[in-house]
Amino acid sequence: MGDITLAVDVMGGDFGPRVTIPALAKALSQHSNLSFLLFGNESQITSLLEKYSLLDSPKIQLHHTEQVIDADIPFSKAIRQSKNSSMRLALEAVKEGKAQGCVSGGNTGALMGLAKLLIEPLPNIERPALTSLIPTMNGKSTVMLDLGANIEVSDCQLQQFAEMGDLFAQVMLGLVYPRISLLNIGTEENKGTAQIQAVHQQLKKRQDLNYIGFIESDKLTSYLTDVIICDGYTGNIALKALEGAAKNIISLFKKEKADSNICRNTKRYLLKLIFYRYYRKLQEINPDRHNGATLLGLSKVIVKSHGGANANAFSYAIDYAVQQIENDIPNKILQRLHQLDKK
Amino acid sequence: MGDITLAVDVMGGDFGPRVTIPALAKALSQHSNLSFLLFGNESQITSLLEKYSLLDSPKIQLHHTEQVIDADIPFSKAIRQSKNSSMRLALEAVKEGKAQGCVSGGNTGALMGLAKLLIEPLPNIERPALTSLIPTMNGKSTVMLDLGANIEVSDCQLQQFAEMGDLFAQVMLGLVYPRISLLNIGTEENKGTAQIQAVHQQLKKRQDLNYIGFIESDKLTSYLTDVIICDGYTGNIALKALEGAAKNIISLFKKEKADSNICRNTKRYLLKLIFYRYYRKLQEINPDRHNGATLLGLSKVIVKSHGGANANAFSYAIDYAVQQIENDIPNKILQRLHQLDKK
Repeated sequence: MGDITLAVDVMGGDFGPRVTIPALAKALSQHSNLSFLLFGNESQITSLLEKYSLLDSPKIQLHHTEQVIDADIPFSKAIRQSKNSSMRLALEAVKEGKAQGCVSGGNTGALMGLAKLLIEPLPNIERPALTSLIPTMNGKSTVMLDLGANIEVSDCQLQQFAEMGDLFAQVMLGLVYPRISLLNIGTEENKGTAQIQAVHQQLKKRQDLNYIGFIESDKLTSYLTDVIICDGYTGNIALKALEGAAKNIISLFKKEKADSNICRNTKRYLLKLIFYRYYRKLQEINPDRHNGATLLGLSKVIVKSHGGANANAFSYAIDYAVQQIENDIPNKILQRLHQLDKK
Repeated sequence: MGDITLAVDVMGGDFGPRVTIPALAKALSQHSNLSFLLFGNESQITSLLEKYSLLDSPKIQLHHTEQVIDADIPFSKAIRQSKNSSMRLALEAVKEGKAQGCVSGGNTGALMGLAKLLIEPLPNIERPALTSLIPTMNGKSTVMLDLGANIEVSDCQLQQFAEMGDLFAQVMLGLVYPRISLLNIGTEENKGTAQIQAVHQQLKKRQDLNYIGFIESDKLTSYLTDVIICDGYTGNIALKALEGAAKNIISLFKKEKADSNICRNTKRYLLKLIFYRYYRKLQEINPDRHNGATLLGLSKVIVKSHGGANANAFSYAIDYAVQQIENDIPNKILQRLHQLDKK
């Protein structure tokens, strides 16, 4: 495995370095071939690097900047604010070939816009799409896109999402002829918007894609399909609803840990004994473990972490980037797109 | 409490009378003032009525029909197929004043269309909206609409949904000046579609509504608001994603019951001892207990049950209808709309 360098927007996300530094410390301990270019405010970062004994690590290069893109400003303002920001510098490092990928928990609109501005898109891809592996109840994963990059999309763009999702599932999940579905409010032919119905007809005609029809949002984690296609607005609504429900329910169990009565250890023991496999299953579908959405359709790996991610979740976003770089995803998609072109 | 008569489309839903008859038997045992007009195929119904000792009950009037509207046909076809169907006859009984409300688990599009055709809408309401009480993590409820009646809506219709939701929350949840939110993919001003942003600005100007801004779909059950407004497509996607996640996770626990090894009773005892409150909380957010969406904006109470509801869930849909009739919801909304008009 070759060396991998990731550019990290240390200041991105709700908690900045307090989350990103512990996360990259964890990632370094897991990937011996990994090193980081960090972009952010030195004064907030060095003490944390010291805490994790990374201050003098040869795996870490820190580039100081005081500029940060606010999380809640409109895209146009974010772009104007972006000069010398931690996010933009991280993306520029990728553009200049100093890093193979970038991870940021910052402003999604800004990351999308700057990535499109700075990182070359793949040929024929009109718009990159936020793509995640979502967990299924049987412990496997389903590719889902778009999760929020494109509020409104054309029929053609939805078809491209299907092509990209198809390739992503083949490479990342090792699937042959992965099942592809369109997210809709019903599985009958007549359900949904005019656009969904039109794209449904278009995808049915594609012999190169294993399109199996509509899927409803209560089946996202049911492993009925390998790739779920939707516009970014619908995908964002569906995924957040799913994640919110999972987080809420899992939080019921986490509270158990905080119990401090005399029975705590007994409870824990019994918990493990009786509920181990359920607890494990709940953990498997914990969204933390599937944090990270990649901007599929660009020539480099750009991963967006949840803004509210904790250190554990952010480390999964780093893993997600590493995995894509190791699998050479952008190049593989590029090659397959060329093959599609020739048809 | 006055007597209540409900018309039930016995054949509606995935399981027809096998679900609806046990459900209404349960409802009869809980509401002494309740009686039913049943519409469906006698040959499938009588044996079930006998099983629940309801064959000669004065609370039950069975009207035989062999016609059923298929679950998966387009609206236009469903309307043509509707003559003498169990669903249409049930709605006609409401129209003719023989019943105060109707419950059906059948074709949503057909129920919507027929209800609009047969049941007078309230003045000023352009479109009825599917409205549910969704469970929150603290054991309370939030009103959510539209959940699938209107795939595309106008700005004005979204405002009307806010008005109706406001009134529904006041009456059904006993709230004064309930908090109202718009479902969106972010809480910042610039997030979402042009329509969402426009309606956001319109609602902010309304002094009569306690509009508190956007809410994201991962917060649906967080009790951050009392009324969630959205178009029917988005609402359907969000609610199904939430329900799917809840059902999947709860199913992990239900499997425990099927365990048949020697420790089963011990496990159950320990389960109750240790996890009782968590299990109860999980049950509270079990979508079964919140089955039933009402077509708010009509002059009568029309409740749609999930097509896949079990008997327990269908009985909650019946309860939901009873509760609305007892609270005289359509009239109260009518009165408030008149008051709004005068302003």
